[in-house]
Amino acid sequence: MTDPVRARLAQERGAILDRLKALVSIPSVSTDPAYGESMEAARQFLMARLNEMGFSGVTTIGEGARPAVYGEWLGAPGKPTLLVYGHYDVQPPDPIDRWHTPPFEPVEKNGRLYARGASDDKGPSLLALETLGAFIVVEGGLPVNIKILLEGEEEMGSPDLASLCRQHADRLKADAALSADGGRWRADLPTINVAARGNAGFELYVRTATKDVHSGRFGGAIPNALHVMATLIASLRDPDGGIVVDGFFDGATDPGPAEAEELAAIPFQEQSFFGELETVPMGEPGYTTLERLWLRPTLELNGMWGGYTGAGSKTVIPHEAHAKFTMRLVAGQDPTRIQQAVTRHLETHTPPGVTMQIRDPRGWCSAYALDPAHPLLAAAEAALTETYGRVPLRVRMGATLPMTDVLANTLGIATVMFSFATSDEDYHAPNEFFRLSSLDEGFDAWVRVLRRVGEQSPEDYAPFSRDGTSNP
Amino acid sequence: MTDPVRARLAQERGAILDRLKALVSIPSVSTDPAYGESMEAARQFLMARLNEMGFSGVTTIGEGARPAVYGEWLGAPGKPTLLVYGHYDVQPPDPIDRWHTPPFEPVEKNGRLYARGASDDKGPSLLALETLGAFIVVEGGLPVNIKILLEGEEEMGSPDLASLCRQHADRLKADAALSADGGRWRADLPTINVAARGNAGFELYVRTATKDVHSGRFGGAIPNALHVMATLIASLRDPDGGIVVDGFFDGATDPGPAEAEELAAIPFQEQSFFGELETVPMGEPGYTTLERLWLRPTLELNGMWGGYTGAGSKTVIPHEAHAKFTMRLVAGQDPTRIQQAVTRHLETHTPPGVTMQIRDPRGWCSAYALDPAHPLLAAAEAALTETYGRVPLRVRMGATLPMTDVLANTLGIATVMFSFATSDEDYHAPNEFFRLSSLDEGFDAWVRVLRRVGEQSPEDYAPFSRDGTSNP
Repeated sequence: MTDPVRARLAQERGAILDRLKALVSIPSVSTDPAYGESMEAARQFLMARLNEMGFSGVTTIGEGARPAVYGEWLGAPGKPTLLVYGHYDVQPPDPIDRWHTPPFEPVEKNGRLYARGASDDKGPSLLALETLGAFIVVEGGLPVNIKILLEGEEEMGSPDLASLCRQHADRLKADAALSADGGRWRADLPTINVAARGNAGFELYVRTATKDVHSGRFGGAIPNALHVMATLIASLRDPDGGIVVDGFFDGATDPGPAEAEELAAIPFQEQSFFGELETVPMGEPGYTTLERLWLRPTLELNGMWGGYTGAGSKTVIPHEAHAKFTMRLVAGQDPTRIQQAVTRHLETHTPPGVTMQIRDPRGWCSAYALDPAHPLLAAAEAALTETYGRVPLRVRMGATLPMTDVLANTLGIATVMFSFATSDEDYHAPNEFFRLSSLDEGFDAWVRVLRRVGEQSPEDYAPFSRDGTSNP
Repeated sequence: MTDPVRARLAQERGAILDRLKALVSIPSVSTDPAYGESMEAARQFLMARLNEMGFSGVTTIGEGARPAVYGEWLGAPGKPTLLVYGHYDVQPPDPIDRWHTPPFEPVEKNGRLYARGASDDKGPSLLALETLGAFIVVEGGLPVNIKILLEGEEEMGSPDLASLCRQHADRLKADAALSADGGRWRADLPTINVAARGNAGFELYVRTATKDVHSGRFGGAIPNALHVMATLIASLRDPDGGIVVDGFFDGATDPGPAEAEELAAIPFQEQSFFGELETVPMGEPGYTTLERLWLRPTLELNGMWGGYTGAGSKTVIPHEAHAKFTMRLVAGQDPTRIQQAVTRHLETHTPPGVTMQIRDPRGWCSAYALDPAHPLLAAAEAALTETYGRVPLRVRMGATLPMTDVLANTLGIATVMFSFATSDEDYHAPNEFFRLSSLDEGFDAWVRVLRRVGEQSPEDYAPFSRDGTSNP
């Protein structure tokens, strides 16, 4: 017999898809202040929908320019309370000229919805909210207590999430968090994330003189900021691609036998992983690709610029150079200490007479690891097993979920990632899309996980929260 | 007794300065097609002025989008014919936000005229033209035959000048060229250039995958185009700053005793040279700064970019990277062979699986060296000695004058650089300016050099032109 809530979602699928299209039409880019009005429009859209679906206490929380959206339904006394997390901000659409259709004009094609934010994270977030709402319509309530938190700064590295959670700790108190963000590893394989790498970003600025000068008049006799920058960057690695920054691997442990076995169970196709991108394996010597992605830290350049970059030529020696970096760190690593190690390396390698600055540190966040015995993990695995007809593989992710670190530190709770985005959906690149089949899988799995948690009690969760007590 | 032409120029100084201000108000940037209309406006301005001053045959020559301006006065039979060279195009104004006043709104301040092109080369070109015109007004003619060639592509590396000279060889035929471009070395010391470095530019493109991807999902396992670019660039030099490209120095000879003596005579103040820029000496080990600038080749990055360069952060692994280079080459070096050596080096150092391309080679030009016995050099030195009251020092320049190479190859004539720009006038940087005192020095010296050449005969020049015959 079909679950009545599931049936309702099937019936409403067209209307929900229309709402998703409306939501992704709003260019809610958090990193660029020029999109401030669209950020507000996205908040208004979501609050209106939460109110419409019967949630209480719908409001924005947070003092900054990009507050979070909050709503709750607390009518299940004696049942666990879940904090359902998603985010309404999206990545910048650049480079816009690489999009086949405009990034904020959703296009449905071959079972996919193309738009910035469709996969990260408006599709997965909205399908979770709609499932929650369907329970209220069909059954007059939910099997568990629900607190909804939709963040507006996830794509900026969640700079204010911690202070927001601390300030509103009572309101946000829950037994665990269930995240609509996080990304499934592959479309053809049910998986559940049990770990993610941490993150720390910064900008490197190099200055070699007071101004740009003519490359004929000064060429060969003074430092060139771009050359100094290139040399500094090159110094970070050895010729085999290994990072040679003293202290960069501090805290990272080599994969043990258990982890090696877990990785060996993953049906990972090197050929298609690299072949689709027309790229090749390159990274820390002595590790497999999955180890490099999931268990080893990395330091990546996200952008680099300096000098004349327009049409034609300009014969200058540039006096300034810039680079944006992000580090991905693993369990056991302290972002502050690793940043210090990188800073020290760059300082040591800066030639005399050249100015080097580390600027704009951002997105600092430790790695995430979920306790294998956590009751929400059990509920999620059971739900996915039913939805897909097979047991999901426990996998890790190379990317970062700042909110897992923040919720652990501020609310003392663990997070289970339960997103129906898939990691190949170009969500930080042009032509981002969301598989529409994921809508149906998501509806099914969210209905099932909520019913499963409804069979658990707050006491099941107590050993896994920081204060060892049950909530609320 | 004051020279009557010189007196006329003193009288007209205000009007000439106004014309210079009008000329630098025209943003005639050659490298960017967006400035096409301003290029045409600059040509019209100069042609109108040449006609007004009494020149004949005033026209544009050249088939391209940026033709040269030509005019002549050939009423001195039996006298030498000089090709007077200048250029009406200017460098791009970027970075515009570093200008204290808008680049195309001339501002007179502390005896300087601030504007893009004021020093390179509209000020020096216009003062030469006005001097020629003053002869016609005051004396009804010039002491020598004059052909004027004002190029429109100098700042692009003069890509079409050679074909233009070949096509119009009869019209441009002359005994020697006197260039209003080139730049004096210092404001406080009369000098004359007898050599310049050659030039060859190119872009380097690196591609590591089909698209930008998420730095979490792929970080540590695939090549990063920016990191590959940085490593390629760093590979060009050893840790001491010496270029390690096999074959890069082919053809360059170490300075001999005569050159060493010439350099030793130059009152070069290392401290102020580097101190003004707040920079430090850096270059090929084992050479002095002047040797590095004048006698040794170099390879300079002019621009570099890739990935996300906007506000905030974007956690991508960029799949493309770009860099613009120019090489400065010395006498004896073949730009084609040196480019091949650099290309070979970059190919060899590109990691497997990564695409590397050399694009957009431009501005190829051999180094320049003037015969110490050339009669126009003698006339120019005599004129400068009178203008400044002391014998000018023979100096070299680190920069490039493509026209000297082109005129030698196409018309078979030597060029004497007789510019009244000064090399500290920020002419390829923000806040370019022209010293207004140089106007007066230039008027004086141009009057004197023209009178000196009027005392010479075409036969004096025959041994120094390619065909050994006199002109026209």
